[in-house]
Amino acid sequence: MQVDNRTRNNREIERKFLVKQLPEKLKRRRHYPIAQGYLATEPGGRHVRLRKKGKTASLAFKVGRGAHREEREVRLSPRQFAALWPGTAGRRLRKVRYEIPWKNLMIEIDVYRGKHSGVVVAEVEFPDLATCREFKPPRWFGREVTGQKRYSNVRLANE
Amino acid sequence: MQVDNRTRNNREIERKFLVKQLPEKLKRRRHYPIAQGYLATEPGGRHVRLRKKGKTASLAFKVGRGAHREEREVRLSPRQFAALWPGTAGRRLRKVRYEIPWKNLMIEIDVYRGKHSGVVVAEVEFPDLATCREFKPPRWFGREVTGQKRYSNVRLANE
Repeated sequence: MQVDNRTRNNREIERKFLVKQLPEKLKRRRHYPIAQGYLATEPGGRHVRLRKKGKTASLAFKVGRGAHREEREVRLSPRQFAALWPGTAGRRLRKVRYEIPWKNLMIEIDVYRGKHSGVVVAEVEFPDLATCREFKPPRWFGREVTGQKRYSNVRLANE
Repeated sequence: MQVDNRTRNNREIERKFLVKQLPEKLKRRRHYPIAQGYLATEPGGRHVRLRKKGKTASLAFKVGRGAHREEREVRLSPRQFAALWPGTAGRRLRKVRYEIPWKNLMIEIDVYRGKHSGVVVAEVEFPDLATCREFKPPRWFGREVTGQKRYSNVRLANE
């Protein structure tokens, strides 16, 4: 997932895996800290997330879980972020994200910090369903956990 | 409640009543249309609300119900609002709000539109608990419904 200057209103097609072994020279890859927290989360998975990725703040609304989900994301000013962030107290997580180009795709590795230290997952976003189905995971990927609540950010943040 | 240029991080102290009879010459009072919708609502009442009040767009995060609640609200740009608003489909309401100065307080009358036509409530916000307790409702107020889910905006929007 990329946060940029445009607002995003698309459906995501993505898969998530545990990571057996971190790729070599990971620290040389592009990476940045992410802090995120949840303002509200419905039992069905619909939620509103605040995120600071490097210096970029955003608010995202998501519906659904698994390989398909709808997402709407907007950039927030530092002031907007500062006003809303306290509302996520007790529902936050921190991680470092590494970007690993892989064939024509981008693998994002999330190394969790704080109370979730030790959890490492990889996410891959696909341009279409065919690419999603045909994807062959690299050898260093572990078990697939797409759509598993156990490894959803919402769930981890609320633990 | 007033939306203004500042972000707001305060607790609200307010009471809500049904309206037996609309005050005379209501149309001459300051009034404006409000459209609002909910991005996510937790069973305990915590929610994220989008609102357009006249031309002013905002996003509010609220926790709790009744006379006490915590609220954080930020102004949104038209672009931010347009990106997020579709996420409230099926969870919206429309009303016209009238502002009636009353002694040192402000009474806000909400006349609901659309599927909630016929519902009319008055809200009064107080500077402190003493003023809240001592408040004597004007004769045209009906039954008090403070904290009643039946007349919460969240509930009406989701009906």
